[in-house]
Amino acid sequence: METNSSQTQQPSIVAPRIVFTNHVPEAIDSMVEQLGNPPVYVLMDVNTQAFVMPLLQAQSSAVAKATAIITKAGDMNKNLEALSAIWKQLSDSNASRNSVLINVGGGLVSDLGGLAAATYKRGIKVINIPTTLLAAVDASVGGKTAINFNGIKNQIGVFNEPEAVIVSTMFFNTLPQQQLLSGYAELIKHGLLDSTETLDELLSFSVVYPRFNSEALMKVLEDSVMIKARYVRQDFTDRNLRHALNLGHTMAHAIEAYGMEVLSPEPHGYAVAWGLVLELILSQMELGLDDGIVKKLADYVLTNYGAFDIIPQIYDKLIDFMRNDKKNTSPDDINFTLLRRVGEPVIDCSVSSDRIKTAFDTYRTLMKLA
Amino acid sequence: METNSSQTQQPSIVAPRIVFTNHVPEAIDSMVEQLGNPPVYVLMDVNTQAFVMPLLQAQSSAVAKATAIITKAGDMNKNLEALSAIWKQLSDSNASRNSVLINVGGGLVSDLGGLAAATYKRGIKVINIPTTLLAAVDASVGGKTAINFNGIKNQIGVFNEPEAVIVSTMFFNTLPQQQLLSGYAELIKHGLLDSTETLDELLSFSVVYPRFNSEALMKVLEDSVMIKARYVRQDFTDRNLRHALNLGHTMAHAIEAYGMEVLSPEPHGYAVAWGLVLELILSQMELGLDDGIVKKLADYVLTNYGAFDIIPQIYDKLIDFMRNDKKNTSPDDINFTLLRRVGEPVIDCSVSSDRIKTAFDTYRTLMKLA
Repeated sequence: METNSSQTQQPSIVAPRIVFTNHVPEAIDSMVEQLGNPPVYVLMDVNTQAFVMPLLQAQSSAVAKATAIITKAGDMNKNLEALSAIWKQLSDSNASRNSVLINVGGGLVSDLGGLAAATYKRGIKVINIPTTLLAAVDASVGGKTAINFNGIKNQIGVFNEPEAVIVSTMFFNTLPQQQLLSGYAELIKHGLLDSTETLDELLSFSVVYPRFNSEALMKVLEDSVMIKARYVRQDFTDRNLRHALNLGHTMAHAIEAYGMEVLSPEPHGYAVAWGLVLELILSQMELGLDDGIVKKLADYVLTNYGAFDIIPQIYDKLIDFMRNDKKNTSPDDINFTLLRRVGEPVIDCSVSSDRIKTAFDTYRTLMKLA
Repeated sequence: METNSSQTQQPSIVAPRIVFTNHVPEAIDSMVEQLGNPPVYVLMDVNTQAFVMPLLQAQSSAVAKATAIITKAGDMNKNLEALSAIWKQLSDSNASRNSVLINVGGGLVSDLGGLAAATYKRGIKVINIPTTLLAAVDASVGGKTAINFNGIKNQIGVFNEPEAVIVSTMFFNTLPQQQLLSGYAELIKHGLLDSTETLDELLSFSVVYPRFNSEALMKVLEDSVMIKARYVRQDFTDRNLRHALNLGHTMAHAIEAYGMEVLSPEPHGYAVAWGLVLELILSQMELGLDDGIVKKLADYVLTNYGAFDIIPQIYDKLIDFMRNDKKNTSPDDINFTLLRRVGEPVIDCSVSSDRIKTAFDTYRTLMKLA
């Protein structure tokens, strides 16, 4: 078998190249050149278009020449209509299989653009440029792309790693404090999954203005992204080991669902912060996790995020929300990822509702609610 | 890192298990049992529902218990609306990530169902059961899934190999002769890509009733599917070596496009048969392929498929259609996969329009049109 072509074979699961830099325009131009200067499409939402696009267009020749695709902001617009509109714009402008889509924005843009790119002509290349701390640490690595469908979050999607991710703190200066804290909760989660050193570094650092130090944040962010990438690499399609990344999230989803129901929605990262405290309490009860760690985390969360008030009257309600979580296999117990020690997650831990209620009581004490 | 779960990691590119059998109901039940008796969904079009479903429901307990999803027949229904309807039925019936979708039918069903399954909850397992010869040899192996979009065939899709393929000749007895011949052209293409032994076996065999021998057909079909699987394995995402499978198809697509324009569409496999004759003529001209092979194929095609009349007045028209083919990189020459010898394809061969016209002249002579 001969070939006159010099193209090389490309597997569909590849570890993405992650570049940490505050020289984003230069990084884009260098990557596009290394890819052989293919046609470039840039996806962003209307907010990013207003705040970030002028800078990138002025300083990156690849972005200046690119075709912009603009999508509506907000999770309610992460839907089939938006996906189909991106496909149509790629198709109308004759985007070829060699084209590259650059997703600039938060998780909405990388989820939506990642799915559009993975399915357009059976897959074109993607570069992710997260502009929020949450997207930088969570949505830009791991290959999860999705849209909401039929009333269910992330119901339709594929696993598809981007070709590259450019991680920067240059976009964070204008983020509201609440958004910074929201993303920081995921960093703390990664610290808990890694080591006491990483955790202590994170808990001694304040992400909040005016103490926010861009260089120091870049350093902890880099550590955190690499911790996540390590877990993802071991279980790309999220069948087992990758469930470790759910730490804190079973409780967090219940808090978020309750917040929606009483029309007082909590920011995702705040729910994760409280969920981490709750699941560390369970880890102490079920797996003997050191008391000191639980106390230290509870203090940090209380100081920076305040306390979500879990009054005894809503204990059953929260447990019901957890029971409906798609990850549960048994109808009675609730499935959690817990910690035996910092850096030692144990997935698929079943906990009874009585034990969960005991954890709620302890949470009330630690968070000074009782 | 510990896990309480016994699930194993699943890579997203796997060679599918291909089972050749005429005991299809038993094969389904055995596969579903090996997968741990997950919830089963069966996708088919309205024709397959009428002709094949009663048999499978009566003889397979897995199909009897399965949820049926029915889609409209015909390539014009391989669209986003049909895809979305499948997603909705999976979602409404709470299909989990462990569910299995069995696609029973022709290329429409495996393309559409394959894409639905690859994207529902970021991927559920697929078993393909092709019911036409064309689907058995072409669409059931190779992982190409797609829908038509924005007026372009297969514009949206992913590469996703099925978990398993059950290849059988039991559904072919009721196929019209034209459909059998249409599929057989792809077998001949695989013979040309393999060896003179395989090619001679195929050309000495008649797929057409009443001489059609089910066991003999199963044998050549098995060889053919394995030849395709071998090419696919070397280049899953169709960047280079897999282009060999385009043999005959550049000419075939031009003949099909012309047929559509003059409202006299040619069956795909017939266009492939004539395309193979034309591209073997080019192979002789450009790469010195043996004259005898060209003559032998032309005789077989003329006897079984008749001759598509390429009159000199449409030479330029056909070349224009080829020029617009998405696979071309240069605006002047046309890109072909050609053969140096049987079993030795050469991809990315550029041929000038003058040389192509000479090949049309030779075709007219060989096919007794001049």
